Amino acid sequence: MFIIGELINGMYANIAKAIKEKNKSIVQKCALEQIKAGADALDVNCGPASKEPSSDIQWLIEAIQEVASVSLSLDSSKPKVIESGLKAVKNKVIINSTTADSDKLDILVPLAKKYNAKLIGLTISSKGIPQNKDQRLELAATIVASCLDNGFPVEELYLDPIVMPVNVAQAEMRDILESIREFRIISDPPPKSIVGLSNVSQGASARSLINRTFLVMAISFGLDAAILDPCDSELMDALISAELILNKQIYCDSYLDAYRKK
Amino acid sequence: MFIIGELINGMYANIAKAIKEKNKSIVQKCALEQIKAGADALDVNCGPASKEPSSDIQWLIEAIQEVASVSLSLDSSKPKVIESGLKAVKNKVIINSTTADSDKLDILVPLAKKYNAKLIGLTISSKGIPQNKDQRLELAATIVASCLDNGFPVEELYLDPIVMPVNVAQAEMRDILESIREFRIISDPPPKSIVGLSNVSQGASARSLINRTFLVMAISFGLDAAILDPCDSELMDALISAELILNKQIYCDSYLDAYRKK
Repeated sequence: MFIIGELINGMYANIAKAIKEKNKSIVQKCALEQIKAGADALDVNCGPASKEPSSDIQWLIEAIQEVASVSLSLDSSKPKVIESGLKAVKNKVIINSTTADSDKLDILVPLAKKYNAKLIGLTISSKGIPQNKDQRLELAATIVASCLDNGFPVEELYLDPIVMPVNVAQAEMRDILESIREFRIISDPPPKSIVGLSNVSQGASARSLINRTFLVMAISFGLDAAILDPCDSELMDALISAELILNKQIYCDSYLDAYRKK
Repeated sequence: MFIIGELINGMYANIAKAIKEKNKSIVQKCALEQIKAGADALDVNCGPASKEPSSDIQWLIEAIQEVASVSLSLDSSKPKVIESGLKAVKNKVIINSTTADSDKLDILVPLAKKYNAKLIGLTISSKGIPQNKDQRLELAATIVASCLDNGFPVEELYLDPIVMPVNVAQAEMRDILESIREFRIISDPPPKSIVGLSNVSQGASARSLINRTFLVMAISFGLDAAILDPCDSELMDALISAELILNKQIYCDSYLDAYRKK
Protein backbone atom coordinates (compact mmCIF):
# COMPACT_ATOMS: atom_id res chain seq x y z
CA MET A 1 0.00 0.00 0.00
CA PHE A 2 1.38 3.35 -1.06
CA ILE A 3 0.51 5.85 1.69
CA ILE A 4 0.25 9.57 1.00
CA GLY A 5 0.00 11.69 4.15
CA GLU A 6 -2.80 14.25 3.93
CA LEU A 7 -1.91 16.68 6.70
CA ILE A 8 0.02 19.39 4.83
CA ASN A 9 -3.10 21.10 3.58
CA GLY A 10 -4.07 24.72 3.96
CA MET A 11 -7.59 23.68 4.93
CA TYR A 12 -6.10 22.79 8.32
CA ALA A 13 -5.64 25.85 10.54
CA ASN A 14 -2.03 25.11 11.51
CA ILE A 15 -0.90 24.84 7.90
CA ALA A 16 -2.93 27.89 6.79
CA LYS A 17 -1.22 29.85 9.55
CA ALA A 18 2.22 28.48 8.61
CA ILE A 19 1.70 29.55 4.99
CA LYS A 20 0.48 33.01 5.99
CA GLU A 21 3.37 33.59 8.40
CA LYS A 22 5.94 31.71 6.32
CA ASN A 23 6.72 29.56 9.35
CA LYS A 24 8.67 26.61 7.96
CA SER A 25 9.05 24.74 11.25
CA ILE A 26 5.32 23.96 11.51
CA VAL A 27 5.33 22.45 8.03
CA GLN A 28 8.57 20.56 8.64
CA LYS A 29 7.29 19.11 11.91
CA CYS A 30 4.11 17.94 10.19
CA ALA A 31 6.17 16.38 7.39
CA LEU A 32 8.48 14.49 9.73
CA GLU A 33 5.62 13.23 11.91
CA GLN A 34 3.80 11.78 8.92
CA ILE A 35 6.94 10.11 7.58
CA LYS A 36 7.67 8.62 11.00
CA ALA A 37 4.08 7.30 11.14
CA GLY A 38 4.47 5.48 7.82
CA ALA A 39 3.81 7.91 4.96
CA ASP A 40 5.56 7.00 1.69
CA ALA A 41 4.72 10.40 0.23
CA LEU A 42 3.24 13.70 1.41
CA ASP A 43 0.35 15.57 -0.14
CA VAL A 44 0.96 19.31 -0.49
CA ASN A 45 -2.08 21.57 -0.80
CA CYS A 46 -2.10 25.33 -0.21
CA GLY A 47 -5.75 25.30 0.80
CA PRO A 48 -8.62 27.60 -0.09
CA ALA A 49 -7.24 30.67 1.74
CA SER A 50 -4.03 30.90 -0.27
CA LYS A 51 -4.00 34.01 -2.48
CA GLU A 52 -0.77 33.10 -4.27
CA PRO A 53 -1.00 29.31 -4.61
CA SER A 54 1.69 29.13 -7.33
CA SER A 55 4.29 30.63 -5.01
CA ASP A 56 2.85 29.17 -1.79
CA ILE A 57 3.15 25.62 -3.13
CA GLN A 58 6.80 26.26 -4.00
CA TRP A 59 7.40 27.59 -0.50
CA LEU A 60 5.75 24.49 1.04
CA ILE A 61 7.81 22.18 -1.18
CA GLU A 62 11.06 23.94 -0.30
CA ALA A 63 10.25 23.85 3.40
CA ILE A 64 9.63 20.08 3.26
CA GLN A 65 12.66 19.38 1.08
CA GLU A 66 14.94 21.04 3.63
CA VAL A 67 14.19 18.21 6.07
CA ALA A 68 13.01 15.22 4.01
CA SER A 69 13.58 13.58 0.63
CA VAL A 70 10.15 11.92 0.47
CA SER A 71 7.94 11.93 -2.65
CA LEU A 72 5.52 14.85 -2.81
CA SER A 73 1.99 14.85 -4.16
CA LEU A 74 1.14 18.26 -5.64
CA ASP A 75 -2.51 18.79 -4.86
CA SER A 76 -4.41 21.47 -6.74
CA SER A 77 -7.34 21.72 -9.10
CA LYS A 78 -5.34 24.35 -11.05
CA PRO A 79 -2.81 22.98 -13.59
CA LYS A 80 -0.82 26.22 -13.29
CA VAL A 81 -0.28 25.65 -9.57
CA ILE A 82 0.82 22.07 -10.20
CA GLU A 83 3.22 23.19 -12.94
CA SER A 84 4.70 25.75 -10.58
CA GLY A 85 5.17 23.05 -7.94
CA LEU A 86 6.80 20.68 -10.43
CA LYS A 87 9.55 23.23 -11.02
CA ALA A 88 10.45 23.20 -7.31
CA VAL A 89 10.34 19.45 -6.68
CA LYS A 90 13.64 17.56 -6.46
CA ASN A 91 12.44 13.98 -5.88
CA LYS A 92 9.83 11.62 -7.34
CA VAL A 93 6.58 13.52 -7.66
CA ILE A 94 2.86 12.80 -7.91
CA ILE A 95 0.41 15.05 -9.77
CA ASN A 96 -2.82 15.27 -7.75
CA SER A 97 -4.89 15.43 -9.88
CA THR A 98 -6.47 15.45 -13.30
CA THR A 99 -10.15 14.94 -13.98
CA ALA A 100 -11.52 13.18 -17.09
CA ASP A 101 -11.99 16.56 -18.83
CA SER A 102 -9.92 17.07 -21.96
CA ASP A 103 -8.78 20.56 -20.96
CA LYS A 104 -7.17 19.05 -17.86
CA LEU A 105 -5.90 15.87 -19.50
CA ASP A 106 -4.30 17.75 -22.40
CA ILE A 107 -2.13 19.75 -19.99
CA LEU A 108 -1.54 17.35 -17.09
CA VAL A 109 -0.82 14.05 -18.85
CA PRO A 110 2.04 15.59 -20.92
CA LEU A 111 3.30 17.31 -17.77
CA ALA A 112 3.27 14.00 -15.89
CA LYS A 113 5.26 12.44 -18.72
CA LYS A 114 7.74 15.32 -18.89
CA TYR A 115 8.43 15.21 -15.14
CA ASN A 116 8.39 11.40 -14.88
CA ALA A 117 5.58 11.81 -12.34
CA LYS A 118 2.88 9.52 -11.04
CA LEU A 119 -0.57 10.87 -11.97
CA ILE A 120 -3.80 10.69 -9.97
CA GLY A 121 -6.87 10.61 -12.21
CA LEU A 122 -10.22 11.45 -10.65
CA THR A 123 -13.17 9.70 -12.30
CA ILE A 124 -15.12 12.92 -12.39
CA SER A 125 -15.75 15.50 -15.09
CA SER A 126 -17.29 18.93 -15.57
CA LYS A 127 -20.60 17.08 -16.04
CA GLY A 128 -20.56 16.21 -12.32
CA ILE A 129 -19.89 13.43 -9.89
CA PRO A 130 -20.44 9.90 -11.24
CA GLN A 131 -23.61 8.25 -9.94
CA ASN A 132 -22.67 4.61 -10.36
CA LYS A 133 -19.91 2.15 -11.23
CA ASP A 134 -20.46 2.27 -15.00
CA GLN A 135 -20.02 6.03 -15.05
CA ARG A 136 -16.83 5.68 -12.99
CA LEU A 137 -15.45 3.07 -15.40
CA GLU A 138 -16.34 5.20 -18.43
CA LEU A 139 -14.49 8.19 -16.98
CA ALA A 140 -11.58 5.93 -16.02
CA ALA A 141 -11.37 4.67 -19.60
CA THR A 142 -11.24 8.27 -20.87
CA ILE A 143 -8.27 8.99 -18.58
CA VAL A 144 -6.49 5.75 -19.55
CA ALA A 145 -7.02 6.55 -23.25
CA SER A 146 -5.40 9.96 -22.79
CA CYS A 147 -2.40 8.33 -21.09
CA LEU A 148 -2.03 5.87 -23.95
CA ASP A 149 -2.36 8.67 -26.55
CA ASN A 150 0.34 10.67 -24.82
CA GLY A 151 2.73 7.78 -24.19
CA PHE A 152 2.35 8.07 -20.42
CA PRO A 153 2.85 4.68 -18.69
CA VAL A 154 -0.54 3.48 -17.42
CA GLU A 155 1.06 1.67 -14.45
CA GLU A 156 1.99 5.14 -13.12
CA LEU A 157 -1.68 6.22 -13.27
CA TYR A 158 -3.68 6.05 -10.00
CA LEU A 159 -7.42 6.10 -10.64
CA ASP A 160 -9.60 7.56 -7.89
CA PRO A 161 -13.25 6.38 -7.88
CA ILE A 162 -14.30 9.52 -5.91
CA VAL A 163 -15.19 8.35 -2.42
CA MET A 164 -18.42 9.97 -1.29
CA PRO A 165 -19.36 10.61 2.35
CA VAL A 166 -21.24 7.63 3.77
CA ASN A 167 -23.81 9.90 5.39
CA VAL A 168 -24.96 11.28 2.02
CA ALA A 169 -24.24 8.46 -0.44
CA GLN A 170 -24.69 5.20 1.43
CA ALA A 171 -26.19 3.43 -1.56
CA GLU A 172 -23.07 4.13 -3.66
CA MET A 173 -20.44 2.62 -1.39
CA ARG A 174 -20.55 -0.86 -2.93
CA ASP A 175 -20.22 0.60 -6.43
CA ILE A 176 -17.20 2.61 -5.28
CA LEU A 177 -15.56 -0.54 -3.87
CA GLU A 178 -16.30 -2.55 -6.99
CA SER A 179 -14.89 0.24 -9.16
CA ILE A 180 -11.55 -0.27 -7.39
CA ARG A 181 -11.60 -3.92 -8.42
CA GLU A 182 -12.66 -3.22 -12.00
CA PHE A 183 -10.23 -0.39 -12.72
CA ARG A 184 -7.60 -3.11 -13.08
CA ILE A 185 -9.30 -4.69 -16.07
CA ILE A 186 -9.40 -1.50 -18.14
CA SER A 187 -5.96 -2.00 -19.67
CA ASP A 188 -2.93 -4.25 -19.60
CA PRO A 189 -0.67 -3.35 -17.84
CA PRO A 190 -3.38 -2.19 -15.45
CA PRO A 191 -3.69 1.25 -13.90
CA LYS A 192 -3.48 1.48 -10.12
CA SER A 193 -6.18 2.66 -7.72
CA ILE A 194 -6.22 5.30 -5.01
CA VAL A 195 -8.75 6.88 -2.66
CA GLY A 196 -8.90 10.12 -0.75
CA LEU A 197 -9.96 8.25 2.36
CA SER A 198 -11.16 10.90 4.80
CA ASN A 199 -13.99 11.96 2.52
CA VAL A 200 -15.88 8.77 3.41
CA SER A 201 -16.50 10.11 6.92
CA GLN A 202 -16.96 13.81 6.05
CA GLY A 203 -19.60 15.26 8.35
CA ALA A 204 -20.02 11.95 10.21
CA SER A 205 -19.40 11.06 13.82
CA ALA A 206 -17.01 8.15 14.53
CA ARG A 207 -14.76 9.39 11.70
CA SER A 208 -11.72 7.26 12.45
CA LEU A 209 -13.85 4.10 12.78
CA ILE A 210 -15.63 4.73 9.48
CA ASN A 211 -12.33 5.60 7.77
CA ARG A 212 -10.58 2.41 8.86
CA THR A 213 -13.56 0.17 8.15
CA PHE A 214 -13.85 1.51 4.61
CA LEU A 215 -10.08 1.31 4.12
CA VAL A 216 -9.98 -2.38 5.09
CA MET A 217 -12.76 -3.10 2.61
CA ALA A 218 -11.02 -1.10 -0.15
CA ILE A 219 -7.75 -2.95 0.48
CA SER A 220 -9.56 -6.28 0.15
CA PHE A 221 -10.92 -5.05 -3.21
CA GLY A 222 -7.36 -4.39 -4.40
CA LEU A 223 -6.65 -0.76 -3.46
CA ASP A 224 -3.06 0.26 -4.30
CA ALA A 225 -2.74 3.63 -2.58
CA ALA A 226 -4.54 6.03 -0.25
CA ILE A 227 -4.33 9.63 0.82
CA LEU A 228 -4.96 9.50 4.55
CA ASP A 229 -3.86 10.58 8.00
CA PRO A 230 -0.91 8.31 8.84
CA CYS A 231 -0.83 9.75 12.38
CA ASP A 232 -4.15 7.98 13.13
CA SER A 233 -2.55 4.93 14.73
CA GLU A 234 -5.77 2.86 14.78
CA LEU A 235 -6.15 3.50 11.07
CA MET A 236 -2.58 2.37 10.48
CA ASP A 237 -3.11 -0.74 12.66
CA ALA A 238 -6.10 -1.65 10.50
CA LEU A 239 -4.15 -1.01 7.29
CA ILE A 240 -1.20 -3.14 8.42
CA SER A 241 -3.52 -5.96 9.57
CA ALA A 242 -5.35 -5.89 6.24
CA GLU A 243 -2.05 -6.24 4.39
CA LEU A 244 -1.11 -9.08 6.75
CA ILE A 245 -4.32 -10.98 6.04
CA LEU A 246 -3.81 -10.52 2.28
CA ASN A 247 -0.29 -11.91 2.61
CA LYS A 248 1.49 -8.65 1.76
CA GLN A 249 3.33 -8.63 5.10
CA ILE A 250 4.91 -11.73 6.57
CA TYR A 251 3.32 -12.76 9.88
CA CYS A 252 5.24 -12.41 13.10
CA ASP A 253 3.77 -11.83 16.56
CA SER A 254 5.02 -8.23 16.50
CA TYR A 255 3.89 -7.58 12.93
CA LEU A 256 2.59 -4.09 13.75
CA ASP A 257 5.98 -2.99 15.08
CA ALA A 258 7.83 -4.83 12.33
CA TYR A 259 5.90 -2.94 9.65
CA ARG A 260 6.50 0.41 11.32
CA LYS A 261 10.24 -0.20 11.69
CA LYS A 262 10.64 -0.93 7.99
CA MET B 1 -25.46 -10.11 9.61
CA PHE B 2 -26.64 -13.04 11.66
CA ILE B 3 -24.50 -13.15 14.81
CA ILE B 4 -23.98 -16.36 16.77
CA GLY B 5 -22.31 -15.82 20.14
CA GLU B 6 -19.44 -18.25 20.72
CA LEU B 7 -18.91 -18.02 24.47
CA ILE B 8 -20.98 -20.97 25.75
CA ASN B 9 -18.29 -23.50 24.98
CA GLY B 10 -16.72 -26.02 27.32
CA MET B 11 -13.29 -25.15 26.00
CA TYR B 12 -13.59 -22.01 28.14
CA ALA B 13 -12.78 -22.68 31.80
CA ASN B 14 -15.87 -20.94 33.22
CA ILE B 15 -18.24 -23.02 31.09
CA ALA B 16 -16.32 -26.27 31.70
CA LYS B 17 -16.63 -25.59 35.43
CA ALA B 18 -20.33 -24.73 35.12
CA ILE B 19 -21.00 -28.01 33.29
CA LYS B 20 -19.01 -30.02 35.82
CA GLU B 21 -20.72 -28.42 38.81
CA LYS B 22 -24.11 -28.06 37.09
CA ASN B 23 -24.06 -24.35 37.91
CA LYS B 24 -26.78 -22.85 35.73
CA SER B 25 -26.23 -19.25 36.75
CA ILE B 26 -22.80 -19.05 35.06
CA VAL B 27 -24.30 -20.29 31.78
CA GLN B 28 -27.32 -18.02 32.07
CA LYS B 29 -25.20 -14.96 32.78
CA CYS B 30 -23.04 -15.75 29.74
CA ALA B 31 -26.16 -16.17 27.60
CA LEU B 32 -27.73 -12.89 28.67
CA GLU B 33 -24.50 -10.92 28.23
CA GLN B 34 -24.11 -12.15 24.67
CA ILE B 35 -27.73 -11.38 23.80
CA LYS B 36 -27.39 -7.90 25.27
CA ALA B 37 -24.22 -7.35 23.21
CA GLY B 38 -26.02 -8.20 19.96
CA ALA B 39 -26.08 -11.99 19.50
CA ASP B 40 -29.00 -13.26 17.37
CA ALA B 41 -28.26 -16.84 18.41
CA LEU B 42 -26.00 -18.66 20.87
CA ASP B 43 -23.61 -21.48 20.09
CA VAL B 44 -23.75 -24.35 22.59
CA ASN B 45 -20.73 -26.63 22.81
CA CYS B 46 -19.96 -28.98 25.71
CA GLY B 47 -16.24 -28.83 25.04
CA PRO B 48 -13.57 -31.52 24.99
CA ALA B 49 -13.75 -32.32 28.74
CA SER B 50 -17.41 -33.35 28.73
CA LYS B 51 -17.77 -37.08 29.40
CA GLU B 52 -21.51 -37.14 28.78
CA PRO B 53 -21.97 -34.67 25.91
CA SER B 54 -25.44 -35.97 24.98
CA SER B 55 -26.80 -35.12 28.41
CA ASP B 56 -24.53 -32.11 29.03
CA ILE B 57 -25.81 -30.38 25.87
CA GLN B 58 -29.39 -30.89 27.05
CA TRP B 59 -28.49 -29.43 30.43
CA LEU B 60 -26.88 -26.38 28.76
CA ILE B 61 -29.91 -25.89 26.50
CA GLU B 62 -32.33 -26.12 29.40
CA ALA B 63 -30.27 -23.67 31.46
CA ILE B 64 -30.30 -21.12 28.64
CA GLN B 65 -33.98 -21.63 27.83
CA GLU B 66 -34.92 -20.79 31.41
CA VAL B 67 -33.76 -17.21 30.81
CA ALA B 68 -33.84 -16.60 27.05
CA SER B 69 -35.81 -17.58 23.95
CA VAL B 70 -32.96 -16.98 21.52
CA SER B 71 -32.03 -19.40 18.70
CA LEU B 72 -29.45 -21.99 19.70
CA SER B 73 -26.65 -23.41 17.57
CA LEU B 74 -25.92 -27.01 18.57
CA ASP B 75 -22.18 -27.39 18.15
CA SER B 76 -20.71 -30.88 18.05
CA SER B 77 -18.83 -33.08 15.63
CA LYS B 78 -20.98 -36.01 16.85
CA PRO B 79 -24.41 -36.34 15.17
CA LYS B 80 -25.68 -38.21 18.26
CA VAL B 81 -24.95 -35.21 20.49
CA ILE B 82 -26.71 -32.89 18.06
CA GLU B 83 -29.73 -35.19 17.90
CA SER B 84 -29.88 -35.24 21.67
CA GLY B 85 -29.77 -31.45 21.73
CA LEU B 86 -32.50 -31.16 19.10
CA LYS B 87 -34.87 -33.00 21.41
CA ALA B 88 -34.39 -30.37 24.12
CA VAL B 89 -34.60 -27.22 21.99
CA LYS B 90 -37.84 -25.21 22.03
CA ASN B 91 -37.04 -22.38 19.59
CA LYS B 92 -35.50 -22.05 16.12
CA VAL B 93 -32.33 -24.11 16.03
CA ILE B 94 -29.09 -24.30 14.06
CA ILE B 95 -27.18 -27.53 13.49
CA ASN B 96 -23.44 -26.82 13.80
CA SER B 97 -22.26 -28.67 11.80
CA THR B 98 -22.05 -31.21 9.01
CA THR B 99 -18.96 -31.83 6.91
CA ALA B 100 -19.05 -32.83 3.24
CA ASP B 101 -18.74 -36.52 4.19
CA SER B 102 -21.70 -38.69 3.24
CA ASP B 103 -21.91 -40.40 6.64
CA LYS B 104 -22.49 -36.97 8.23
CA LEU B 105 -24.70 -35.58 5.46
CA ASP B 106 -26.94 -38.66 5.41
CA ILE B 107 -27.81 -38.15 9.08
CA LEU B 108 -27.65 -34.40 9.58
CA VAL B 109 -29.42 -33.10 6.46
CA PRO B 110 -32.57 -35.17 7.17
CA LEU B 111 -32.38 -34.13 10.83
CA ALA B 112 -32.15 -30.47 9.81
CA LYS B 113 -35.21 -30.94 7.62
CA LYS B 114 -37.14 -32.78 10.34
CA TYR B 115 -36.46 -30.09 12.94
CA ASN B 116 -36.88 -27.12 10.54
CA ALA B 117 -33.33 -26.16 11.49
CA LYS B 118 -30.69 -24.02 9.84
CA LEU B 119 -27.67 -26.13 8.90
CA ILE B 120 -24.00 -25.12 8.96
CA GLY B 121 -21.97 -27.01 6.33
CA LEU B 122 -18.19 -27.06 6.72
CA THR B 123 -16.31 -27.34 3.43
CA ILE B 124 -14.08 -30.01 4.84
CA SER B 125 -14.09 -33.80 4.60
CA SER B 126 -12.35 -36.83 6.03
CA LYS B 127 -9.72 -36.28 3.32
CA GLY B 128 -8.58 -33.17 5.16
CA ILE B 129 -8.71 -29.39 5.12
CA PRO B 130 -9.17 -27.83 1.67
CA GLN B 131 -6.03 -26.21 0.30
CA ASN B 132 -7.57 -23.71 -2.10
CA LYS B 133 -10.78 -22.10 -3.33
CA ASP B 134 -11.59 -24.78 -5.90
CA GLN B 135 -11.51 -27.50 -3.26
CA ARG B 136 -13.76 -25.40 -1.03
CA LEU B 137 -16.26 -24.91 -3.84
CA GLU B 138 -16.21 -28.61 -4.71
CA LEU B 139 -16.99 -29.56 -1.11
CA ALA B 140 -19.65 -26.84 -0.97
CA ALA B 141 -21.30 -28.30 -4.06
CA THR B 142 -21.36 -31.74 -2.41
CA ILE B 143 -23.18 -30.30 0.60
CA VAL B 144 -25.63 -28.34 -1.57
CA ALA B 145 -26.36 -31.49 -3.62
CA SER B 146 -27.20 -33.40 -0.46
CA CYS B 147 -29.60 -30.65 0.62
CA LEU B 148 -31.32 -30.72 -2.77
CA ASP B 149 -31.52 -34.54 -2.69
CA ASN B 150 -33.12 -34.44 0.74
CA GLY B 151 -35.52 -31.58 0.05
CA PHE B 152 -33.77 -29.32 2.56
CA PRO B 153 -34.11 -25.63 1.58
CA VAL B 154 -30.70 -24.40 0.40
CA GLU B 155 -31.36 -20.87 1.69
CA GLU B 156 -31.26 -22.36 5.21
CA LEU B 157 -27.77 -23.78 4.55
CA TYR B 158 -24.80 -21.76 5.86
CA LEU B 159 -21.55 -22.76 4.14
CA ASP B 160 -18.35 -22.29 6.13
CA PRO B 161 -15.14 -21.97 4.05
CA ILE B 162 -13.03 -23.08 7.07
CA VAL B 163 -11.13 -20.04 8.25
CA MET B 164 -7.50 -20.92 8.92
CA PRO B 165 -5.23 -19.07 11.37
CA VAL B 166 -3.43 -16.23 9.60
CA ASN B 167 -0.15 -17.16 11.28
CA VAL B 168 -0.09 -20.59 9.62
CA ALA B 169 -2.05 -20.09 6.37
CA GLN B 170 -1.44 -16.52 5.24
CA ALA B 171 -1.38 -17.47 1.58
CA GLU B 172 -4.91 -18.93 1.80
CA MET B 173 -6.74 -15.92 3.20
CA ARG B 174 -7.68 -14.43 -0.17
CA ASP B 175 -9.03 -17.81 -1.36
CA ILE B 176 -11.13 -18.05 1.80
CA LEU B 177 -12.58 -14.58 1.20
CA GLU B 178 -13.30 -15.32 -2.44
CA SER B 179 -14.98 -18.59 -1.48
CA ILE B 180 -17.50 -16.55 0.51
CA ARG B 181 -18.34 -14.59 -2.63
CA GLU B 182 -18.52 -17.65 -4.85
CA PHE B 183 -20.63 -19.85 -2.57
CA ARG B 184 -23.57 -17.71 -3.70
CA ILE B 185 -23.30 -18.82 -7.31
CA ILE B 186 -23.49 -22.55 -6.55
CA SER B 187 -27.27 -22.69 -6.65
CA ASP B 188 -30.38 -20.57 -7.04
CA PRO B 189 -31.70 -19.72 -4.49
CA PRO B 190 -28.17 -19.37 -3.13
CA PRO B 191 -26.84 -20.89 0.08
CA LYS B 192 -25.67 -18.47 2.77
CA SER B 193 -22.14 -18.13 4.17
CA ILE B 194 -20.77 -18.22 7.70
CA VAL B 195 -17.37 -18.17 9.39
CA GLY B 196 -16.08 -19.28 12.75
CA LEU B 197 -14.25 -15.99 13.14
CA SER B 198 -11.90 -16.45 16.07
CA ASN B 199 -9.94 -19.16 14.30
CA VAL B 200 -8.33 -16.53 12.06
CA SER B 201 -6.31 -15.24 15.02
CA GLN B 202 -5.68 -18.57 16.76
CA GLY B 203 -2.21 -18.45 18.30
CA ALA B 204 -1.62 -14.87 17.16
CA SER B 205 -1.05 -11.71 19.12
CA ALA B 206 -3.43 -8.77 18.48
CA ARG B 207 -6.32 -11.24 18.26
CA SER B 208 -9.17 -8.73 18.40
CA LEU B 209 -7.54 -6.52 15.74
CA ILE B 210 -6.99 -9.47 13.38
CA ASN B 211 -10.53 -10.75 14.03
CA ARG B 212 -12.22 -7.46 13.24
CA THR B 213 -10.05 -6.75 10.20
CA PHE B 214 -10.85 -10.14 8.70
CA LEU B 215 -14.54 -9.78 9.58
CA VAL B 216 -14.82 -6.43 7.78
CA MET B 217 -13.23 -7.98 4.69
CA ALA B 218 -15.52 -11.01 4.85
CA ILE B 219 -18.59 -8.77 5.18
CA SER B 220 -17.52 -6.85 2.09
CA PHE B 221 -17.27 -10.19 0.25
CA GLY B 222 -20.88 -10.95 1.19
CA LEU B 223 -20.70 -12.86 4.48
CA ASP B 224 -24.16 -13.62 5.90
CA ALA B 225 -23.35 -14.88 9.39
CA ALA B 226 -20.52 -15.32 11.88
CA ILE B 227 -19.80 -17.20 15.06
CA LEU B 228 -17.91 -14.67 17.17
CA ASP B 229 -17.53 -12.99 20.55
CA PRO B 230 -20.28 -10.35 20.62
CA CYS B 231 -18.89 -9.02 23.91
CA ASP B 232 -15.81 -7.71 22.02
CA SER B 233 -17.16 -4.19 21.59
CA GLU B 234 -14.47 -3.12 19.11
CA LEU B 235 -15.37 -6.13 16.96
CA MET B 236 -19.04 -5.18 17.10
CA ASP B 237 -18.20 -1.54 16.24
CA ALA B 238 -16.35 -2.77 13.16
CA LEU B 239 -19.21 -5.11 12.20
CA ILE B 240 -21.82 -2.36 12.56
CA SER B 241 -19.70 0.10 10.58
CA ALA B 242 -19.17 -2.44 7.81
CA GLU B 243 -22.93 -2.93 7.56
CA LEU B 244 -23.37 0.84 7.51
CA ILE B 245 -20.94 1.27 4.64
CA LEU B 246 -22.68 -1.50 2.67
CA ASN B 247 -26.02 0.24 3.21
CA LYS B 248 -27.47 -2.44 5.47
CA GLN B 249 -27.99 0.05 8.32
CA ILE B 250 -29.37 3.53 7.75
CA TYR B 251 -26.88 6.25 8.64
CA CYS B 252 -27.45 8.46 11.66
CA ASP B 253 -24.77 10.14 13.79
CA SER B 254 -25.42 7.68 16.61
CA TYR B 255 -25.55 4.64 14.32
CA LEU B 256 -23.56 2.45 16.74
CA ASP B 257 -26.06 3.05 19.54
CA ALA B 258 -29.01 2.79 17.17
CA TYR B 259 -27.90 -0.67 16.02
CA ARG B 260 -27.37 -1.88 19.57
CA LYS B 261 -30.78 -0.65 20.72
CA LYS B 262 -32.56 -2.56 17.96
